[in-house]
Amino acid sequence: MYAITIPEPGGPEALVWDEVPDPVPGEGEVLVEVVAGAVNRADVLQRQGYYDPPPGASAYPGLECSGRITALGPGVAGWSVGDEVCALLAGGGYAEKVVVPAGQLLPVPEGVGLKQAAALPEVACTVWSNVFMVAHLRPDETLLVHGGSSGIGTMAIQLAKAAGAKVAVTAGTKEKLDFCAGLGADILINYREQDFVAEVKEATGGAGADVILDNMGAKYLDRNIKALAVNGRLAVIGLQGGAKAELNLGVLLAKRAAISATSLRARPLGEKAAIVAAVREHVWPLLADGHVRPVIDRELPMPEAAEAHRVMEASGHIGKVLLVVPERS
Amino acid sequence: MYAITIPEPGGPEALVWDEVPDPVPGEGEVLVEVVAGAVNRADVLQRQGYYDPPPGASAYPGLECSGRITALGPGVAGWSVGDEVCALLAGGGYAEKVVVPAGQLLPVPEGVGLKQAAALPEVACTVWSNVFMVAHLRPDETLLVHGGSSGIGTMAIQLAKAAGAKVAVTAGTKEKLDFCAGLGADILINYREQDFVAEVKEATGGAGADVILDNMGAKYLDRNIKALAVNGRLAVIGLQGGAKAELNLGVLLAKRAAISATSLRARPLGEKAAIVAAVREHVWPLLADGHVRPVIDRELPMPEAAEAHRVMEASGHIGKVLLVVPERS
Repeated sequence: MYAITIPEPGGPEALVWDEVPDPVPGEGEVLVEVVAGAVNRADVLQRQGYYDPPPGASAYPGLECSGRITALGPGVAGWSVGDEVCALLAGGGYAEKVVVPAGQLLPVPEGVGLKQAAALPEVACTVWSNVFMVAHLRPDETLLVHGGSSGIGTMAIQLAKAAGAKVAVTAGTKEKLDFCAGLGADILINYREQDFVAEVKEATGGAGADVILDNMGAKYLDRNIKALAVNGRLAVIGLQGGAKAELNLGVLLAKRAAISATSLRARPLGEKAAIVAAVREHVWPLLADGHVRPVIDRELPMPEAAEAHRVMEASGHIGKVLLVVPERS
Repeated sequence: MYAITIPEPGGPEALVWDEVPDPVPGEGEVLVEVVAGAVNRADVLQRQGYYDPPPGASAYPGLECSGRITALGPGVAGWSVGDEVCALLAGGGYAEKVVVPAGQLLPVPEGVGLKQAAALPEVACTVWSNVFMVAHLRPDETLLVHGGSSGIGTMAIQLAKAAGAKVAVTAGTKEKLDFCAGLGADILINYREQDFVAEVKEATGGAGADVILDNMGAKYLDRNIKALAVNGRLAVIGLQGGAKAELNLGVLLAKRAAISATSLRARPLGEKAAIVAAVREHVWPLLADGHVRPVIDRELPMPEAAEAHRVMEASGHIGKVLLVVPERS
């Protein structure tokens, strides 16, 4: 098969479409013929050499895909050859074929195309596990989402609105904020021109955000805690603004607030399977009935993954960037 | 009535036993004739002028007491004049009489004396709300308790053991650690001589503590996070080692860990009542059947509160220091 390889870490050109051995499904795994993969920030870090795959994972980048099951390893129940699926991956999604632990498979939701389904696993699992399973967002609470127009952001807005919450978003352009508004976001904050702490406070009668979904890490830590309401929960899922910052525990204590930080990729199989099962139970029906939809910025042929990374790094996109496997000849 | 007043913040001598007006129970409140109060670190801060009572609370120190109900305000159900109770207070426990919101009353547990019951409300509510309601300590997990011989520590050891968890404690003397061992603590760490991160790791096969109950704040933040296991939860309940410290979110994220910080005193009535109700449901039966007992260092007459504060500040005590109201003449 062909896959995007990284012979030497570096810029986007480090991504090379090359012929590699086919993967073979082991116990509890299936082989998926990939129709599309999707790009995540973590793939950029992996390409740069800053985020090696966890032990046992594919060496190729790609944390999610859609496609068809073409073989079952021993001990797989509930899935059949020919099933159209999407999947959460520890790696290997930028390839024609990938091996997937059965617990990380999801059916293609009703009403979503097979290709488009590649945009769903990472964002649905990340948002559901952090905003609902860890931070327990409740109806009538306020969620602040940084990077509201990102893949994660667009899913977070939709899921929080479906849950009956109020949603505040930050983004860097009017176009992105308008898009967020179209998805249901209530409070729109241009972080280049406005102070998100002041805006969130004002829009909530001084209370602040009950839950914050943050991808900036250190750069926003102090302001995020200032923007939290009493009993607020800050869920950190990315460190785009660095890892180390001063924390004022006095402010945290006065608010009875909490900070969590998670990633999906390093979780053991059992935890991933539990998240995937919860997403299938709670998010998939919202996709089937049209309350939630995948937001896709563009599709590129998978061999042009370098261009997809340039798009991601330029941050002009809205939603997910897909990598479509070329037709087999 | 008489109460301990603080005419001018300062050292222990700032605590003055003086005649003051009797409090009057309002809607949903009862009047308790106090038999004993107990000393908390927060009382020392209040005496020093660093921790003013929240709005509406008594001006006198004292966050818990035991005694008898002598009057009911309007709208109180489920309690009667003459009931022997202990209570979680927002203040006013260093006094002959105190007004208590009914939701913060607890019956004196079977098998515990009326006076000794004054040692229970703060520690039971603090430990239950943090270790179980916020951090969700589970059987077979490991809890690390800093200050294992304190009032909080001695309750945390007992409740965690009763829940089937493994317990590690830090303390500053062999005598204190021996006492903790007698309560069931499994891992004993003298923080003056040992590195608690290394000790906890070694005693857990390299895994670390699943939950840490911390009263030190900034001074221990980095080490606490290092001592946490994957999926670990750090519950900060005191800032004896300062409030501001550098947080490495990268370590937190790699462990999928969480930090919470809470205090009881500032919580609204509804939250306090929910915690008190949970304590009555989960902790009171353990007191009645002898699995858990109040740990009391000494009793002093309430007019000698200054001496009680000196004991607390010298940190030589084990368990709670009680202040007993003198016999009425």
